[in-house]
Amino acid sequence: MPYYVITYDVSEQRVNKVRKILKKYFVWVQNSVFEGEISLGKLEKCKQELLQVIDQREDSIYIYKVHRLTDLDKQVIGVEKEFTDNFL
Amino acid sequence: MPYYVITYDVSEQRVNKVRKILKKYFVWVQNSVFEGEISLGKLEKCKQELLQVIDQREDSIYIYKVHRLTDLDKQVIGVEKEFTDNFL
Repeated sequence: MPYYVITYDVSEQRVNKVRKILKKYFVWVQNSVFEGEISLGKLEKCKQELLQVIDQREDSIYIYKVHRLTDLDKQVIGVEKEFTDNFL
Repeated sequence: MPYYVITYDVSEQRVNKVRKILKKYFVWVQNSVFEGEISLGKLEKCKQELLQVIDQREDSIYIYKVHRLTDLDKQVIGVEKEFTDNFL
């Protein structure tokens, strides 16, 4: 299953809505970054939900995909953050 | 050459210093994201410089690496941002 890193730069008024959607599909790993392994079908569903809440002229979401988690190496400098439910 | 996506969550007092370092090695593609292709040697140099300016107990930098750019697929929802020099 493909592995995804999602990054975003979204206006303050809409960022919580975007996070709530992303939290259903991915893990929140840094202030503007989510990660996770999901099927293509679920990714499409997630994208449709995101399109309903963002302003495409202002907001920016990048979906990075690798075919397998093993294709991606991750190094951490400083704190490795992970946000739990009580942040939303 | 490996391809990198760098994401960061750094305190306001230090974020400009981090961006100035990253801009020497990568392209600034989203508010908290840089991308680029560099040698292992240059990556180590970049990491050493970052370690001099961040507070490792508070700040967080993730370095995602794929072996080749072709291993990484990128989809954009909304705006594809790229920051030029006048932002620093």
